[in-house]
Amino acid sequence: MGEESIFLKIAKGEIPAKIVHQDDEVVAFRDISPQAPVHILVIPRRVIVRIDAAGPGDGDLLGKLLLVAREVARREGIDKTGYRLVINNGPDAGEAVPHLHVHVLGGRKMAWPPG
Amino acid sequence: MGEESIFLKIAKGEIPAKIVHQDDEVVAFRDISPQAPVHILVIPRRVIVRIDAAGPGDGDLLGKLLLVAREVARREGIDKTGYRLVINNGPDAGEAVPHLHVHVLGGRKMAWPPG
Repeated sequence: MGEESIFLKIAKGEIPAKIVHQDDEVVAFRDISPQAPVHILVIPRRVIVRIDAAGPGDGDLLGKLLLVAREVARREGIDKTGYRLVINNGPDAGEAVPHLHVHVLGGRKMAWPPG
Repeated sequence: MGEESIFLKIAKGEIPAKIVHQDDEVVAFRDISPQAPVHILVIPRRVIVRIDAAGPGDGDLLGKLLLVAREVARREGIDKTGYRLVINNGPDAGEAVPHLHVHVLGGRKMAWPPG
């Protein structure tokens, strides 16, 4: 068994975070190093290490992550101005924590390309 | 009825594209203005205008978009080196076509922030 990631500890309430949504399957909280006025991370409570590690049976949970990201964006008031969802997989993408997370970024103009 | 988007026409086979995956629900094809060595768009055949327009019943389809993105990344050989998935919603994010699409970008180091 590896050490628990910081995100799993946040999901378990063992580490404090600015939580903006939680339910039985999903937790959303503010990124501690925000890259935009709104920068929230949406994670599953169950550990999926990264999107490449998701199985065919994880489709429902993956869809729920996106639906929660959408709801969080609405509550933050960035649904009309716009926002970007980002999932990083592996070293080239700068994946930083081995627990699947969806970045929700908004409140400013986002440039293209996306990094 | 509005004019059909270019992505719907691609999904219907009315406009040519470099298609890399298609099934009953999802089509994936290469971006015509690639921002990385691998840059593929994954779209649902059924029109969902943007992620903010997805309904609670769309969770399965949203999950499938991510699973297909994952499969496409594997076939392109970027699953280990890494890749970034991006969904743009609205003007601040530079949403360009009113048909939900997941960008799959890889084959180079991606910077942070993501735009």
